[in-house]
Amino acid sequence: MSAKIRLHVEHPLAEGQPLPLDREQAHYLFTVMRLEPGARVLLFNGRDGEWLAEVSEAGRRGGTLTALARTAPQRMPPDVWLCFAPLKKARTDFIVEKAAELGAARILPVQTDFTNAERIRRDRLQAHAREAAEQCGGTYVPEVAELRPLAALLGDWPRGRRLMFCDESRAGPASVLEGESRGAWAILIGPEGGFSQPERARLLALPFARAVSLGPRILRADTAAVAALTLWQQALGDWA
Amino acid sequence: MSAKIRLHVEHPLAEGQPLPLDREQAHYLFTVMRLEPGARVLLFNGRDGEWLAEVSEAGRRGGTLTALARTAPQRMPPDVWLCFAPLKKARTDFIVEKAAELGAARILPVQTDFTNAERIRRDRLQAHAREAAEQCGGTYVPEVAELRPLAALLGDWPRGRRLMFCDESRAGPASVLEGESRGAWAILIGPEGGFSQPERARLLALPFARAVSLGPRILRADTAAVAALTLWQQALGDWA
Repeated sequence: MSAKIRLHVEHPLAEGQPLPLDREQAHYLFTVMRLEPGARVLLFNGRDGEWLAEVSEAGRRGGTLTALARTAPQRMPPDVWLCFAPLKKARTDFIVEKAAELGAARILPVQTDFTNAERIRRDRLQAHAREAAEQCGGTYVPEVAELRPLAALLGDWPRGRRLMFCDESRAGPASVLEGESRGAWAILIGPEGGFSQPERARLLALPFARAVSLGPRILRADTAAVAALTLWQQALGDWA
Repeated sequence: MSAKIRLHVEHPLAEGQPLPLDREQAHYLFTVMRLEPGARVLLFNGRDGEWLAEVSEAGRRGGTLTALARTAPQRMPPDVWLCFAPLKKARTDFIVEKAAELGAARILPVQTDFTNAERIRRDRLQAHAREAAEQCGGTYVPEVAELRPLAALLGDWPRGRRLMFCDESRAGPASVLEGESRGAWAILIGPEGGFSQPERARLLALPFARAVSLGPRILRADTAAVAALTLWQQALGDWA
């Protein structure tokens, strides 16, 4: 009865629901993992919780699973976005993986004045987020948004969403979050070179932004992303 | 006058102090970075703060730097150890890098019942810690200890040092740290498979240990290390 493989699927999940597999899923389950009819896996789709399912048909290019029973309720993350300036490939992958593990609701790559990346492979980053959710036992996969300039993101910022802005140079301790209320938030992590002076001035002037320090040492951007999500989850999220 | 290269050295640092370079340092500075006599670098040795230094002699197999002036005071991290069960190579490297960035005083790889690693490359991990300190602007390099069995480490645990033990199954929220006092601490992160039942029972019975939860999602061990150091620094370290 053990079912260690966890897969994110798009289909609705309900008892007896048949789930057709695409070629990639069939390759993974039947060629890589060598599952046979009757084998069991865990599924989630971000809406219906986690389900135990059974292999009904196994083929080279497709197959079918059948959902049997719900094994865990759907759990949504708190409403926190992680906005970050993409770095080199491996560290960008890392940030996306960690954001999914730590319960970010959305992941938004942003272009800043000192960001190197001109473009991202959104589909690849989305696959990283999905794999992280599969491996960490989550029932939710955060959406990875398209790369946007920071100025555009701030220009149509959603009403009521607050911003925790991680700044090395002018910021208060993370305990400032303790006086804040829960609700819709976003975390913004700058690129390796920090924010430019005009960016910093704009951020500090935003009424919905709080500048927060991440300690006396300089952190790499990937470390800062994990530390900031940890502090936010502890103060305002679902870790308390 | 800009000096972006930062190097950890073993020698004492004082005004006018000449510093002989070994072959590896000379190769890095003069062949890789193409520095010439008169070029400036920043140095630290973990005791005397950060110093501006000048290249006095540059050779293929050696050379000399001369310390000119102190540019930052020595800053020691709080007295917190990070104990962790080594993982696959890349994630172990990552934990060591992040521990140095986040201000761990010592890094102790431990063998647990479910640890895969039989041995570690201590010299390679120590080099990672040094590089992280060089890059993050620190003046201190945490020592990486030899791999030891967890039972042996707990068997001669230093008197007065408390232990934050990160456990998925039976633990209180991180806010339990808020009632604790500062001083000598260690953080213990388990391997991917968690602690064994006997290990968990022993840890929970230790009078100096506090079991702390890292939220409702399952975190990979490398994520857990960064999150735990963040929470500790925020509650009991030098981030407040």
